[in-house]
Amino acid sequence: MGNPVIDGWFLERDRGYGLALEVKEHLHGEQSPWQKIDVYATASFGNLLTLDDIVMLTSRDNFLYHEMMSHPALFTHAAPEVAVVVGGGDCGTLREVLRHPTIRRAVQVELDERVTRVCEQYFPELTEANGDPRAELLFEDAIAWMARCEPETADVVILDTTDPVGQARRLFGEPFYRDVHRALGEGGIMVAQSESALLDVALLEELHRNMKAAGFTDVRTIQFPQPTYPTGWWTATLARKGARIEGFREEAVRNRPFRTRYYNQETHRAAFALPEFLREALGA
Amino acid sequence: MGNPVIDGWFLERDRGYGLALEVKEHLHGEQSPWQKIDVYATASFGNLLTLDDIVMLTSRDNFLYHEMMSHPALFTHAAPEVAVVVGGGDCGTLREVLRHPTIRRAVQVELDERVTRVCEQYFPELTEANGDPRAELLFEDAIAWMARCEPETADVVILDTTDPVGQARRLFGEPFYRDVHRALGEGGIMVAQSESALLDVALLEELHRNMKAAGFTDVRTIQFPQPTYPTGWWTATLARKGARIEGFREEAVRNRPFRTRYYNQETHRAAFALPEFLREALGA
Repeated sequence: MGNPVIDGWFLERDRGYGLALEVKEHLHGEQSPWQKIDVYATASFGNLLTLDDIVMLTSRDNFLYHEMMSHPALFTHAAPEVAVVVGGGDCGTLREVLRHPTIRRAVQVELDERVTRVCEQYFPELTEANGDPRAELLFEDAIAWMARCEPETADVVILDTTDPVGQARRLFGEPFYRDVHRALGEGGIMVAQSESALLDVALLEELHRNMKAAGFTDVRTIQFPQPTYPTGWWTATLARKGARIEGFREEAVRNRPFRTRYYNQETHRAAFALPEFLREALGA
Repeated sequence: MGNPVIDGWFLERDRGYGLALEVKEHLHGEQSPWQKIDVYATASFGNLLTLDDIVMLTSRDNFLYHEMMSHPALFTHAAPEVAVVVGGGDCGTLREVLRHPTIRRAVQVELDERVTRVCEQYFPELTEANGDPRAELLFEDAIAWMARCEPETADVVILDTTDPVGQARRLFGEPFYRDVHRALGEGGIMVAQSESALLDVALLEELHRNMKAAGFTDVRTIQFPQPTYPTGWWTATLARKGARIEGFREEAVRNRPFRTRYYNQETHRAAFALPEFLREALGA
């Protein structure tokens, strides 16, 4: 793949679009059993984590993704008690989940323990909740874990995965969604990171089809900014078992016992507003 | 400044953040009296216009910016008849303005005629409305034009400017805003492109102060995605004379006699939803 740092800039290229971050120092590099893991100190985005030379997160803007992968689903559910995070080895999503006082168990199923260990060192703010007694960190294959998960035991399942290539492709398929559907209780919500709103319309259409085919009653895509992912315009797709995705616990959002930097009642509602071209593509 | 194209990629760098587009061909290059103008054919974003090596627009994603610079303001105003576009030499904003049947006069005041001529050649879809009898294309300094503009003659003034550096800095200052305020009728709306939501919070705070100091009754910032501007997350700031910015002509939006690709009732409302950190910064 060559060195992703050219002239002091980390460059990620994706279908003719590139994203660059000025790098001051290569803080860490290793090849885990699963992937190449690197951490850089950037000039203005704090630390940068990459997997196989793809940007996973920066200190500066990961709050957008982590808040939007967790709070819209958790505040839509009436009383989420058990949450499962698939992937999410940086633990930023897990931290947001644990902020919810209704949660009594949060399981994270990440394949690569090294990602979590590296983040403990370079992104301690993301892993700060890992010692919470409600948290359970498992390092194993999420496909196998979900297949044997006790039915109707989860309220929210968050698919905080890498891009749908290689190994991770299976985490975007109907068979896996079926297992998630079975693991969820009635009214339970699955939320999957679903790539760029501009570049990945075909993928979004496929995910909607797969989720409906897997038995979900309602499927809705939300959008939010994420400057260090391709196009800076990201989506997550929510699918609900046995109920529509509409309304949310506004009073609980207003009185939330934790700080957010992006998420609030207005951005919750705004996230569901789809551009015309996506409304047309997704039949929303 | 050196060649902005490295290894076949056009690279724009801004405060540690970089944006790259794969380039197939350099279609046009010239030094006008005001700036360096270039057009490239990109691999996946259509044609790319740059001024002094800064991305102005691409064929693929300019609809986001142009729709959001025009429709929210025009549908908030009760019956906009006269609109002024400051800058906007690519004519994409002018085209959106002219889609509104209430408009009977649309004046564009652009400093550099060459930008418009180059766009006529390489972005004909943006300049297609220039022959509309309601359109008036002026090529002169907007500061001087606005200073002598007849008071209370405009309903909407759109500041479709380059970044606030060099010459363009004056277009973000209180004296110019005062002239715009005088040119607007009661209830009139000024809308200014106001840079990145993530990188330019200090500028946004300054613009709010300047606009209020210039006499505007209400100032509100909207946000929208714009993948080929730094961070992919852009803002525009609306300021209204003698009235609050609230509500909009929803029925007219629903029955609009033209197609949009981003803008609709939901994205109109969503654009006004500010993240927590911006709400705090702007006191909204």
